[in-house]
Amino acid sequence: MTTTSDSSVTPLPGGTVPPTPTSVDTAEAQAAFSAISPAEPGGLDLRAVQELLLGRWSAERREGRENAKNPDLHKLDNITMEEHRERVLQQLRILVDAGAVQKAFPTSLGGADNHGGNIALFTELVSADPSLQIKAGVQWGLFGSAILHLGTQSHHERLLPDVMSLDVPGAFAMTEIGHGSDVASIGTTATYLPETDEFEIHTPFKAAWKEYLGNAALHGKAATVFAQLITNGVNHGVHCFYVPLRDEAGDFLPGVGGEDDGYKGGLNGIDNGRLHFDHVRVPRTNLLDRYGHVDENGGYTSDIASPGRRFFTMIGTLVQGRVSLSMSGAAASALALTGAITYGNQRRQFNATSDVREEVLMDYQLHQRRLIDRLARTYADTFAANELLEKFHSIFSGESDTDEDRQELETLAAAIKPLTTWNALDTLQEAREACGGAGYMAKNRFASLRQDLDIYVTFEGDNNVLLQLVGKRLLSDYSKDLTNLSIGALSRYVRGQATEAMVNRSGLRRVAQAVQDAGSERKSASWFKDPEVQRALLEDRVRTKTGAVAQALMPVAKKPQAEQAATFNQNQADLIDAARNHGELLEWEAFTRALDSIEDDHTQQVMTWLRNLFALRVIEDDLGWFIQSGRISAQRARTLRGYINRLAARLRPHAQDLVDAFGYEQEHLRMDITTGAEAERQDEAAEYYRKLRASADAPIHEKVLHQREKNAAKAARARGGKAGR
Amino acid sequence: MTTTSDSSVTPLPGGTVPPTPTSVDTAEAQAAFSAISPAEPGGLDLRAVQELLLGRWSAERREGRENAKNPDLHKLDNITMEEHRERVLQQLRILVDAGAVQKAFPTSLGGADNHGGNIALFTELVSADPSLQIKAGVQWGLFGSAILHLGTQSHHERLLPDVMSLDVPGAFAMTEIGHGSDVASIGTTATYLPETDEFEIHTPFKAAWKEYLGNAALHGKAATVFAQLITNGVNHGVHCFYVPLRDEAGDFLPGVGGEDDGYKGGLNGIDNGRLHFDHVRVPRTNLLDRYGHVDENGGYTSDIASPGRRFFTMIGTLVQGRVSLSMSGAAASALALTGAITYGNQRRQFNATSDVREEVLMDYQLHQRRLIDRLARTYADTFAANELLEKFHSIFSGESDTDEDRQELETLAAAIKPLTTWNALDTLQEAREACGGAGYMAKNRFASLRQDLDIYVTFEGDNNVLLQLVGKRLLSDYSKDLTNLSIGALSRYVRGQATEAMVNRSGLRRVAQAVQDAGSERKSASWFKDPEVQRALLEDRVRTKTGAVAQALMPVAKKPQAEQAATFNQNQADLIDAARNHGELLEWEAFTRALDSIEDDHTQQVMTWLRNLFALRVIEDDLGWFIQSGRISAQRARTLRGYINRLAARLRPHAQDLVDAFGYEQEHLRMDITTGAEAERQDEAAEYYRKLRASADAPIHEKVLHQREKNAAKAARARGGKAGR
Repeated sequence: MTTTSDSSVTPLPGGTVPPTPTSVDTAEAQAAFSAISPAEPGGLDLRAVQELLLGRWSAERREGRENAKNPDLHKLDNITMEEHRERVLQQLRILVDAGAVQKAFPTSLGGADNHGGNIALFTELVSADPSLQIKAGVQWGLFGSAILHLGTQSHHERLLPDVMSLDVPGAFAMTEIGHGSDVASIGTTATYLPETDEFEIHTPFKAAWKEYLGNAALHGKAATVFAQLITNGVNHGVHCFYVPLRDEAGDFLPGVGGEDDGYKGGLNGIDNGRLHFDHVRVPRTNLLDRYGHVDENGGYTSDIASPGRRFFTMIGTLVQGRVSLSMSGAAASALALTGAITYGNQRRQFNATSDVREEVLMDYQLHQRRLIDRLARTYADTFAANELLEKFHSIFSGESDTDEDRQELETLAAAIKPLTTWNALDTLQEAREACGGAGYMAKNRFASLRQDLDIYVTFEGDNNVLLQLVGKRLLSDYSKDLTNLSIGALSRYVRGQATEAMVNRSGLRRVAQAVQDAGSERKSASWFKDPEVQRALLEDRVRTKTGAVAQALMPVAKKPQAEQAATFNQNQADLIDAARNHGELLEWEAFTRALDSIEDDHTQQVMTWLRNLFALRVIEDDLGWFIQSGRISAQRARTLRGYINRLAARLRPHAQDLVDAFGYEQEHLRMDITTGAEAERQDEAAEYYRKLRASADAPIHEKVLHQREKNAAKAARARGGKAGR
Repeated sequence: MTTTSDSSVTPLPGGTVPPTPTSVDTAEAQAAFSAISPAEPGGLDLRAVQELLLGRWSAERREGRENAKNPDLHKLDNITMEEHRERVLQQLRILVDAGAVQKAFPTSLGGADNHGGNIALFTELVSADPSLQIKAGVQWGLFGSAILHLGTQSHHERLLPDVMSLDVPGAFAMTEIGHGSDVASIGTTATYLPETDEFEIHTPFKAAWKEYLGNAALHGKAATVFAQLITNGVNHGVHCFYVPLRDEAGDFLPGVGGEDDGYKGGLNGIDNGRLHFDHVRVPRTNLLDRYGHVDENGGYTSDIASPGRRFFTMIGTLVQGRVSLSMSGAAASALALTGAITYGNQRRQFNATSDVREEVLMDYQLHQRRLIDRLARTYADTFAANELLEKFHSIFSGESDTDEDRQELETLAAAIKPLTTWNALDTLQEAREACGGAGYMAKNRFASLRQDLDIYVTFEGDNNVLLQLVGKRLLSDYSKDLTNLSIGALSRYVRGQATEAMVNRSGLRRVAQAVQDAGSERKSASWFKDPEVQRALLEDRVRTKTGAVAQALMPVAKKPQAEQAATFNQNQADLIDAARNHGELLEWEAFTRALDSIEDDHTQQVMTWLRNLFALRVIEDDLGWFIQSGRISAQRARTLRGYINRLAARLRPHAQDLVDAFGYEQEHLRMDITTGAEAERQDEAAEYYRKLRASADAPIHEKVLHQREKNAAKAARARGGKAGR
C-alpha cells in the first residue's frame, strides 16, 4: 500500500520524512489532491450557524451543556453494572439539586410549564452519560409525564412533588413480555371492586409481566401501570394506574414481584427489570383519569366516546419520548463527527502527492465521502429535530393544540425519530471506523455511545413500526387527495408515468422539462442543485410510491379482513420505504427553511452546498427508482456521483468549522483524539527525522542504494559504450 | 397500530384471543398473508446443505464446535476487564490442553502442518467468546505465525514449543501509534551492532510506540517486533525480531516499557497495550531471517532483491488473520440469524388476518426482507470464506504455491474479509433490532457479539484500505487486458455504452438481447433468475467501473507524482466501489459453484432461490448504476423489487431449515429467545383466554357494547319506521 518513491528527496526510514517548509509545488499538489475549491475556509458566520443548530431553546441547550460538564455526571468505563446503577441514581439527585429536571412540570409545583426548554436540557445529557439521560427520561419524561398528562389536578398535587424531587423513583410499566409494539393487547388487568372502592391490578400469565422497565429492578418505589380497565363486566381498554411497588426499605409490597433484567447491550447504568402483580389493590383514585373516570359505583365516563380514539389520545400524550430521542440522536451524531473530523484533520497516513509529507486523512476522497456526507445529514437531522421540538412545544404549551395538530405531531415524530436514531448509529459507527483502532478505545467514546444508543432505535416505538404508522397516514392523506382526481388518472400515474395533472400539481413540470435538455455536466449540475428540482423529486417520490401502494390496496378494499391484510402485507416493505422517504423530505424541508435565516452570503453559500449534498445523497441512495420511473434521465444520473464528489471536496475546507459550529467543548467530547495529542506526536516525529537528516549518521535506504547502483551501472555502460565507439 | 375489529368473534381484553382450531379460512388467510408458495417446507436435504456450509474441513469445524460447548470457555457478562482478561488467559490454557491450537505448526514439533483445519477450528471459537478467539489469534495466529513464517528452522525449534504451550505468551508488535495501515513507514529501528553481535531495538519518538497489541498490557513475555533493519548505515526496510519483554515475575525487562490500552468497545478479555523500547539489545539470531539475513559483520543478504517485493512477501505470509476473520464473520452472521429467525418463527405481534390469532413475525413481509435477504448473503459469505480458506491452505501446505497464487490469495482475502466482517456487523445489528428489546438483553448475545466483532472491520487490514488494494489489482489486471483492445474501444466502453467487442467478451450479448424483449413481469423474472444474466451483470459492472477509473488515470500516467496522486484521489471512491463489487462477484461465484454439488432436486431448487435472492439484492442495491449504464432497462428494473419480495416469501417456509442447516446447538447459541420460552408463554396466555371465554365472567369489550347499542338503536329505528308507516 506504500507508493514507490521516484522523487529525488532522500527518503528516511520508512519513507517518513519531516515536513519541509511547504514549497509552492507541494501546496499546489496538496490542493489538487484534496480538490480544494477556490473558496478558502474561514470567514463563516459560525455564531449564526450555531444559533440555527441550537434552535429556539438555545439558552436551555447551553444551560444543559454547562450542567453536562460536571465530571460527576460523566460515564465511567469498566465499572460493574451495580456500581454504574448506583452512580446514575446519585447523578439524578445532582440534577434535582441543580434544578435541571423541573421545567416541564406546572409552575404551581415549582416547574416552569416549559416543555420545549425541558427537552432541550434533557438532550444535552447524552454527552454526559446516555444511562443518565434515559434514567432521567424514565423518571420525569415517562413516569412523571404519565401522571402529568394522564392524571388530573389532584394527582398532580398529590404525586408530582415526590416525583420531581426523586423521593419516589418510579417505573413506567407499559410494555409486557408478550406485547411491546401492540400496547392495546397487553394482558394486565385492573378490575374495579365497588365493595372496597379499589382497583385490583393483576398479571394473569407470564407473558403479561411488565418488561424492560427502568427503575423496576432496584430503585422504583412506584409505577404508572398500564392495564385493561374492567368495571361492571366491561373492558374499557388500556388505562394507567399509579401503583406503589416498594416500601421504604426497598422491599416489594405484598403482591408485587419482579426480576432484574440484568446486563444489557448498553445503558447499564439503568436498573431495567420485570414486574408482576398478584391481585394488588390500589384506591380508585389511583386511576389517572383525565381521559376515563370511574365513579364509586363503578360507572365509567370519558370525554372521548370512541375507545379507539381514547386509546390513541392517551398514548399520544406520551410522544415526548420520541421527540427527546430525535434530539438526542442528532446530538450524538454531532459529537461523533466533531471527534472524527477533528482527528481526520490531524491524522496523516500514506504518502501520495510527494515523498516529503503524508496526507491528512480528510484530504482523501473516501474520507470526505464517509464523513462530510454524514455531516450534511446530521445538519438535516438537527434542523428536523428542532422543528419537531417546536411543534411539540406549541401543542403542549397550548399555543396551538387541535386534534389535527396532535395527529401531525404524532406523524412527524414517527417519521423523524427513526431517521435520527438510525442515523446516529450509522454515524457513530462510521466515525469509529474512520478513526481505526483509536476509534475502538473507550477513551475515544464512539463505541460506548453507540452501544448505549443502540436501543434508541427500538424503544419508544420500534423504528419500523413507527414508519408503518407514517405510511398509513400517507395512505389516508393520499386517498383524501384523490377525491379531486379520477381513478383513471391515478392508475396511469402509479404506473410510473406522471400524468399532466400530477406533473403540474407536484412541480414536476419543471423537472420534466429540465430532463429534456439534459446533456452537459454543467447543465446537469445546475439542475441538481436547483432547490425546486430537489423538492419536486423528493415530494413526487413519496406521492408516487404511496400511490402505488394505494392502488394495490384498492381492489381489496371491500374484501374480507384476511384478504385485505394479505394484500397490505405484500406492500408493507414498499409502504415503509415511502414513509422513510417522507421523513427524508421533511428533513430536506427543515434544512431548506434553515437556510433562509442566514444573512452572510458566504455562510449561506457553504450551507447551501451542505443542503445540496444532503439532498443529492438521498437521491443517489434511491437512484434506481428515480431513473426507472422516468424522474431522472440516465444521462443526467451518470453525472450525479461526480457532482457529489465535487461537492464533498468543496465542503472539505469548511468541515472543521462546520463541526465546531455544533459548539461541543472538550468536557463534552472527552475524546483523546480531540486533544491535539496526535498533531503533537507528528511534530515530534518530524523533528526527529529533521535532526537525523541533518546529522552525519542518517541511514540510507536500500532502495536508494539500488537506484544509485543502477545509475552507476548505467553511467559505466554509457562510458563503456563511448569507449567502444 | 391495532386493527379495528369488524369480525363477529368476541374480542377479549386487548383483542388477544386464543387460537381456535385453525379453520380452512384462517389457514388460507394466513397462507395468503405470508405469501407461502405452493412448495411446502421440509424435505430439504439438510445434511448436504450443512456439509456445503462447513466446507472441506467440516471435521475440524465439528471438533471446534464440540470444544466450544465447554462452559469454561464461554463469555461472562458483567465482569470487570481484569476478571475477563484473567479468565481468557485461563481459557487459552484449556485450549492448549485440549490440543486445539497446534494444528498449523510443524508435525516435528507436535503440530499437524494443517493450515486449513487449524483455521476451521479457530473459527468456532467465536461462539464461545470472541475475546478468546482473538487472544488465541494473537498468540498462535500472529505471534506464533510470525516465528513460523518469517523465522527459519532454528527459530522454530528454539521458540515455537514455548509459544505452542503458552509458556511464552507473546505480542505481535507491528502497528505503531503513528502508523497502522502504512506498515512500511513504522518508526521503530533495529540497528545491528557488530561489536556485540546484537541488534538494538529502539523507539525514537512517541508516535513509534507499538500500539493496540494483545498480550502487551499484562501477559506477554516476548514479542515479534517489526522494525526498520539498519546495518552498515543502510536501512533494509521492515523486518521482524523476537524480543523478550518481561521476566518471570511479569516485570518489564530493562529498556522495555509500556502502557495498558485499558477499556475498549469490546474484546475486553484481551490485554491490549502499548510498548516502547529504549536501546534494547537482542542477539543477532533473534532476527527472523527467512527473507533477510544479517551476518556477524553486518552484511545483509536476501533471496528477494527488491526491498518492495521483499516487504510485501513478508507481510503476505501473515494473510491468515484475514482468512480467519472472513470465516469468523460468516460464522457470527450465522449465529445471529439462527437466533433471530428462530424467534421470528415463534414471536407473534398484532392481529392482521383475523381477530383470532396474532401474526408470526416471520410472516410479515418486512421481517422477511430484513432477515431472509441477510440469510442469503450469509450463505454467500460462508461459501466465499470457505473458498478463501481452501486457497490459503493450498498455498501454505505447498499444494500450489507460486507467486501468482500468493498474489491471488492476497487479493481474494482483501476482497472477502471486508465483506464478511461488515456483513457480520450489519446482520448482528438487524437481528438485534428484529428481536426488539429482547435483542438488547445480554442473555440474547446479539449486542455483545456485535461489540466484540466491531474491531474486525478495521484490524488485520482496515476494510477500506484492503478494498483499495483490490482496486489497484483490478486496475493492473484491466490494463493487462487492454493490450488486446484499442484505446478507442476502451473509451467508448467506459462511457457506459458497451461496444460489441466488450459485449461479446463479457457475456453481455445475451443480456443486451434480453433487454430488447423486456415487457412482461414473467419474462422479466425469468431473465433475472438466469445465472448467466446474473454473472454477466456482475462481471460487467466490475469491468466497466474499473475501466472508467483506468481511463481517468491514463492522461496523467506520465505526469508528476503529485498530479497522479490527485487524479487517483478523485477516483478513489469509485475504485473502492468497484473493488466491493468485485467481492460481491466472488461471493456470487462461490455460491453458484456450491449449487453444483447438491444432488436433491428440491434442495437444489430452494438453494437456487437463495442464490438468486443474493444476486438480485446485490443488483438492487446498485440499481441506479445498472439502469444508467444501459445494462438493465427501466421497464425491467421496475419489476425487480416485486420479484425480490416474492422470492423472499417463497423462501420464508424454508427459513428455519436454512438456519438449522448451520448446525449451531443451544450450547453455541446460548440465547434465551431460542429456548422455546416464547412459544410456551404464548400457549399459557392462549389457554388463559380460552378458559376465560368459556367461563361466565369474561368481561365484554366496550367496543362490542357500543356495537350492540348501535345495532339495538338501528333495530329500534327500524321498528319505529314500521310503526310510523
